[in-house]
Amino acid sequence: MTIHRPESFRAVDWKDDALVLLDQRELPRQEIYRSYTDAGEVAAAIRCMVVRGAPAIGIAAAYGYVLAVRAACAAAPTHWRSHLRPQIERLAASRPTAVNLAWALARMDRAAERVDGPPAAALLAEAIAIHEEDVAANRRMGEIGAAYIGSGAVVLTHCNAGALATGGYGTALGVVRAASARGSIAAVYADETRPWLQGARLTAWELARDGIPVTLIADAAAAHLMRTRGVDWVIVGADRIAANGDVANKIGTYQLALAARAHGTRFMVVAPSSTFDAGIAEGPSIPIELRGEEELLDAGGRRLAPAGVSAWNPVFDVTPAGLIDVIVTERGAIERPDVAGMRRVLGA
Amino acid sequence: MTIHRPESFRAVDWKDDALVLLDQRELPRQEIYRSYTDAGEVAAAIRCMVVRGAPAIGIAAAYGYVLAVRAACAAAPTHWRSHLRPQIERLAASRPTAVNLAWALARMDRAAERVDGPPAAALLAEAIAIHEEDVAANRRMGEIGAAYIGSGAVVLTHCNAGALATGGYGTALGVVRAASARGSIAAVYADETRPWLQGARLTAWELARDGIPVTLIADAAAAHLMRTRGVDWVIVGADRIAANGDVANKIGTYQLALAARAHGTRFMVVAPSSTFDAGIAEGPSIPIELRGEEELLDAGGRRLAPAGVSAWNPVFDVTPAGLIDVIVTERGAIERPDVAGMRRVLGA
Repeated sequence: MTIHRPESFRAVDWKDDALVLLDQRELPRQEIYRSYTDAGEVAAAIRCMVVRGAPAIGIAAAYGYVLAVRAACAAAPTHWRSHLRPQIERLAASRPTAVNLAWALARMDRAAERVDGPPAAALLAEAIAIHEEDVAANRRMGEIGAAYIGSGAVVLTHCNAGALATGGYGTALGVVRAASARGSIAAVYADETRPWLQGARLTAWELARDGIPVTLIADAAAAHLMRTRGVDWVIVGADRIAANGDVANKIGTYQLALAARAHGTRFMVVAPSSTFDAGIAEGPSIPIELRGEEELLDAGGRRLAPAGVSAWNPVFDVTPAGLIDVIVTERGAIERPDVAGMRRVLGA
Repeated sequence: MTIHRPESFRAVDWKDDALVLLDQRELPRQEIYRSYTDAGEVAAAIRCMVVRGAPAIGIAAAYGYVLAVRAACAAAPTHWRSHLRPQIERLAASRPTAVNLAWALARMDRAAERVDGPPAAALLAEAIAIHEEDVAANRRMGEIGAAYIGSGAVVLTHCNAGALATGGYGTALGVVRAASARGSIAAVYADETRPWLQGARLTAWELARDGIPVTLIADAAAAHLMRTRGVDWVIVGADRIAANGDVANKIGTYQLALAARAHGTRFMVVAPSSTFDAGIAEGPSIPIELRGEEELLDAGGRRLAPAGVSAWNPVFDVTPAGLIDVIVTERGAIERPDVAGMRRVLGA
């Protein structure tokens, strides 16, 4: 299996009959690839963010499904389906907000139902198809999104919606890559994105490798940047998009969208159709993951905040469709998204 | 000299003929007090943020002035004034945004002009007066501000505008303390305040010592907090207030004010009259300090971001008066601030 990507790294890969993940907790200091042959360990790796980013989580889960099938077949060659469910449920429960995870597992379920005979090869082919289609979708979204970016554009992105968050190339950063290749980009700013610092650690790392200059800012500096230097576009990814176009994405996205609206900065969301959840009418119904307080209370593995202090650590928020200028998917762009627009482009 | 404060620590103190600063770079892990007998070292301590917070910087500079006078007298007992200026200029240049620094030095200059004979005692008395008046102003602002806070209030603060940022008691946290004493506060949230983490390190530390429960959030989570849990008041300090009521304060304050406006959350600025700069017509003319990129690029003393990545690190921003519900000073509150309101309460 080869998947064409310009990046010299692979966040998610299948190699020597194992899932290989680039450990994103260690970046940018170390480039460590970890090999997984057990679906339960894949679920744990997703939960503790060895791999993160909605599309990448979906792809990792699809490969995890292959590992689960292999284990089920080893345990019960003819009744493998009855041994599969607990492992798949563990994968499904690993993180709650990104719907690409459930989407990928449902697609693998459908492939498993179609299987007649030994399932491993057919399901690996399905996982690889999910992976390859994601890269192709990113390429397509890159072209569609870049067409919106006028020359000399100043762009601000949040978190990491790049090659590291996807099968390759990236969603928001795919648009940045495509626009940069066209010569449209004057400057890229990246929010550092507390608490996990995806911007400082991951977006900076992958754009630097591509030779696209990037300037980090504190998350709290975005409105000041817009007011004093001017930003043409905020471009972000998504973890789940409701039927009405409301978008769940990394905590801080909503605050950025409010600031963008106040400054006439346009706001673009870039996400594959697998991020769309027609079963959720509006954003506030999207489950928002709360992660451990220690992500805010600790620094470098040591307690930073004093005893007796607690923290509230929601890691996603919801941006209402009304603050979004355009949602870019591989099936087309939805400008000023609403129920009708989402349905027209994405079905439902 | 004794200054009445309920806190068991003193951010700025005068003891045994020396300025004593609680080193805020080391909090909350260590409570280290450093002693200064040289004005140049005081300027360096202000620059590297051993002491920070607009009013505390002003007080430290006033004591630094005393040290400068002492050195000038030792060098030239009768011509001490001619030896003073370079040291005072170094103090004045230590940080650019907080006007309390220039205000305190100008007040010390006036006291120095009045002196007839050996100046040390008279100037120390003036510095102590600046310090004591600041504490009294904080107490007064606490009462004025707390009167705005209805019972069961949920409050969000940014950075540290507490006892650590002032002579004692605090500006924004003075209001929180006074409202808490009245039983009005249901919950206090504190932004962690990147890059220097004044919220996580300092506000959490001093509120925890007072037994006021506080919950930390990422800076980027404020709008999500307002939307999902509700916030009644954002309460912040200020580093400089223009003639029209525009407020320079810690980076992120402007973004918070935009989010507050979108959610019907009221926005209070608490600052002594020494923060008011009648010579600056509007906020955009206030000088905004840019600090080193390493505050964003490094973590725990090691480079975090990859090579080739730069950072933009403005540490203050400007919130336009139109986003502020009330500015509380020790001379009274200015609701919906504008030039006329500011002039009515603060003169100039």
